[in-house]
Amino acid sequence: MTDSTLGVKALLFDVFGTVVDWRSSVINEGRELGRRLGITVDWDSFADAWRGAYQPSMDPIRTGARAWANLDTLHRESLVKVLCDFSIELRDECAIDALNGVWHRLEPWPDSIAGLQRLKQRYTLGTLSNGNIAMLVNMAKRVGLPWDVVLGAEVFCTYKPAPQVYLGTCRYLGLAPQEVMLVAAHNNDLFHAKSHGMRTAFVKRQEEYGPTQTDNLEAEYDFDYVADDFLDLAERLGC
Amino acid sequence: MTDSTLGVKALLFDVFGTVVDWRSSVINEGRELGRRLGITVDWDSFADAWRGAYQPSMDPIRTGARAWANLDTLHRESLVKVLCDFSIELRDECAIDALNGVWHRLEPWPDSIAGLQRLKQRYTLGTLSNGNIAMLVNMAKRVGLPWDVVLGAEVFCTYKPAPQVYLGTCRYLGLAPQEVMLVAAHNNDLFHAKSHGMRTAFVKRQEEYGPTQTDNLEAEYDFDYVADDFLDLAERLGC
Repeated sequence: MTDSTLGVKALLFDVFGTVVDWRSSVINEGRELGRRLGITVDWDSFADAWRGAYQPSMDPIRTGARAWANLDTLHRESLVKVLCDFSIELRDECAIDALNGVWHRLEPWPDSIAGLQRLKQRYTLGTLSNGNIAMLVNMAKRVGLPWDVVLGAEVFCTYKPAPQVYLGTCRYLGLAPQEVMLVAAHNNDLFHAKSHGMRTAFVKRQEEYGPTQTDNLEAEYDFDYVADDFLDLAERLGC
Repeated sequence: MTDSTLGVKALLFDVFGTVVDWRSSVINEGRELGRRLGITVDWDSFADAWRGAYQPSMDPIRTGARAWANLDTLHRESLVKVLCDFSIELRDECAIDALNGVWHRLEPWPDSIAGLQRLKQRYTLGTLSNGNIAMLVNMAKRVGLPWDVVLGAEVFCTYKPAPQVYLGTCRYLGLAPQEVMLVAAHNNDLFHAKSHGMRTAFVKRQEEYGPTQTDNLEAEYDFDYVADDFLDLAERLGC
């Protein structure tokens, strides 16, 4: 199956875990911080605990029980709790803000930039992320993720998998859902995209959650493409 | 005055007239269309008439008298009237849509791309335009305008100079207004940006409205920078 068969014009990417390796990035900044502070912390567990608060923190906003708050805000609230749980005392509020900013400084997977550059030759590339715009723009600018457009949950004031995040992004691009393909490493995200008529590409990121990852090792639905990484996806799309 | 004094982190650009030469682009596509149809039309006047409908078409949305409609929609409504005024009969609705798409195919001024590439090395570059996202993304993709982020009126459901378009875009970037500079060829747009605390750069586009242009020939307020073109602006900003 070639992309000309599908008629895809834009590729939208989930970001955390799909484009960037959030876990190693958080662990590495944590270790550096630990060295500076002279403290010993299990930063792998710290990263997992912080990320563990991610989905639950969005739920009250998804249900409408809480007014919109962007991901920087939710991350910071979770961080304060996780710092407490790990008995880490930072100097002041600014130091907490600085650590919270790690989500603006996530490192891409080794294939991400080269793959995106190839895909960009043929497709409009954008984000379809729960990250806020500033986070996504700063992250891209720092390492050179070549987005044509940065969109996501923030402009719709709710989080994936709310339908309007998928459908609204397609509408902003002036495209029908079937002209847009979501690229993600997560079955659930792709399942929702597919349910709205979008095309789907599953990319394997089998160590997103570390070496003992058990979920999202393989595609669990009938997605349009399944790829080992972004270079493999570019190859399959004829880029 | 250097940018390090000002502390500017992002440059946001007005697009029509500032980055792209809408008038020549519309005239050139019109002439080509006239040749294909074998009709004689004063395409300069046609372009001016179509653009003349631009500001009035946004007014009912600015005042709240009309629900949100994006610029593709407003352009198309104006186009139908202008085609009628110029006694131009197109084949069908698709032909009208095709001509309406010229606003997705505007050509940059000769200095735009080279200037933006230089400025992009130091600043986050984005749009702050009344154009809709699809229009801005397609325009950029076609000629290589290197935006880091594409934002504008559409995500706020109203048009400049509504305050939320300026302030909301700064907020999405996670920046204070004084950390963001609007670059525009229009005194009015910059006046509003300045009134909200943004930094301002006036770029001279003295033939945007053709050789007999009378407005916006010079900066009329005390803007932070006044530049002859984007290369001159890059020079002044030390890029």
